Amino acid sequence: MKSPLTTLCYIEKDDAYLMLHRIKKENDINKDKWIGIGGHFEAGESPEECLLREVKEETGLILQSYRFRGLVTFVTLQGIAEYMCLFSSDEFSGELAECDEGELVWVKKEQIKELNLWEGDHIFLKLLEERESFFTLKLVYDEDRLAEAVVDGNRILK
Amino acid sequence: MKSPLTTLCYIEKDDAYLMLHRIKKENDINKDKWIGIGGHFEAGESPEECLLREVKEETGLILQSYRFRGLVTFVTLQGIAEYMCLFSSDEFSGELAECDEGELVWVKKEQIKELNLWEGDHIFLKLLEERESFFTLKLVYDEDRLAEAVVDGNRILK
Repeated sequence: MKSPLTTLCYIEKDDAYLMLHRIKKENDINKDKWIGIGGHFEAGESPEECLLREVKEETGLILQSYRFRGLVTFVTLQGIAEYMCLFSSDEFSGELAECDEGELVWVKKEQIKELNLWEGDHIFLKLLEERESFFTLKLVYDEDRLAEAVVDGNRILK
Repeated sequence: MKSPLTTLCYIEKDDAYLMLHRIKKENDINKDKWIGIGGHFEAGESPEECLLREVKEETGLILQSYRFRGLVTFVTLQGIAEYMCLFSSDEFSGELAECDEGELVWVKKEQIKELNLWEGDHIFLKLLEERESFFTLKLVYDEDRLAEAVVDGNRILK
C-alpha cells in the first residue's frame, strides 16, 4: 500500500516554476492538471530522501539546496487523506530529462494561475511567495471542489 | 490500521515540561519511557487537530497556542516507520487530569536528561531549546539502540 505521505516541490528558475502537465498516465487523480514535482514516500524515507529521489526520477535534476516550506493535509469527503511535504528549490544541477508522468514545462509565475490547477494549489502557491516561516494548510475537497481551507489552524475558506 | 503519522507535544510551564511516564499500558513500545504528550492521527486529521485532541484526551488541558517545531522521521531497521509532528506549547487552560497511559509529571528541563528517554529524544529536546526555525530529524533505531541521526538532511551521528 502506498504511504499517505508525499513530497511536492516547486523548482524555480528565472521567475518560473518547473511544472508537470500530467497527461501521460491513465487513472491519474491529477490527470490533465498542472502540478509540481513529487510523489509518495518509499519505506523508511525521510521527507528529504523522498524529495531528492522523486526530483531525480521525474526530471533528471539533482537539487543542490531546498527549503521545506509547509505541510499540506489534503483530504476528500470521499475518504482520501494525503500529507504533502511542500518544498521549494532554486539551486540544482543536471539536464532536464523526459518524464514518464507528463510534460515538464518552465512556466512564468504570473502565468501559473491560468493553468488547470487544483483549486487549493492557488492557496499554497501564494503562501510559497509570501511566507518565510513554515506553514500548515488543510484542504478538504468534495470530489474536485474545494470545500474548506485552513491555514495554521485558522479557517480561511468554508 | 494506525496512521504512520503522530503528534508529540512538549508543554512548558515554569521551566518544566509536562512528561508522561508510560507505565500503565502493557505491550507499549514506550513502556517505562518518559515522553511528551501525543499519539496517532485519526482519519483525515491535520497535525493541529490531532495535537489538540491528544492533549485534551491525555491531560485534560486545552492548548491556547502552540508552535509546530519539526518533523521527525522515526524508523527502525526492523521495519517500523513513524512520522512525528513535533509541537511545543506554553499557553493552555484547564486542570491536569489522570492519564490512562501513564503518570503525568512536570519535570524541570535540567532534570529531563536523567530520565529514561529514547536516545534520540535528547537530540530533538536540544533542538526545541536551540532552534527557532522548523527542522527535520531522521532517527534510525536498531531495536532500542540509535543507529543514525540526520538533521535537516545532514548526518550528525552514525
